[in-house]
Amino acid sequence: MKARVHVMLKDGVLDPQGEAVRHALATLGFGGVEGVRQGKVIELDLAETDRAAAEKAVREMCEKLLANTVIEKYTVELS
Amino acid sequence: MKARVHVMLKDGVLDPQGEAVRHALATLGFGGVEGVRQGKVIELDLAETDRAAAEKAVREMCEKLLANTVIEKYTVELS
Repeated sequence: MKARVHVMLKDGVLDPQGEAVRHALATLGFGGVEGVRQGKVIELDLAETDRAAAEKAVREMCEKLLANTVIEKYTVELS
Repeated sequence: MKARVHVMLKDGVLDPQGEAVRHALATLGFGGVEGVRQGKVIELDLAETDRAAAEKAVREMCEKLLANTVIEKYTVELS
């Protein structure tokens, strides 16, 4: 089973990387970019075949390692 | 308009970061993780309202800045 995790900064947390990208885009002449937020996407190949068990394990992975839950939020998609 | 860009390493390109995550997950006791690939997700708030123009601009942003197209591939989603 494949799982895809998106880890983004929580709303309200300053995103210096996103700001840097926005500034660079403007420098390259891309106008009209009002905001940029950058995060991580992590694709996991899991041996687990049970959907509920897989989701539970991936959420636990997020809580323990993949996301800093103080400032980051995450979503889990299974396919 | 919101655009979401996923930038991932091309298939076949070694992903040391993904390997490090896989190793760390195993150390934390998460068995059955057969592969990990890590990439970037970039959310853009665009002033552009025309869908085709927005997609064209975002693809150009990817080609020029957001992705290193030698080793990375990208996808663009508009919402």
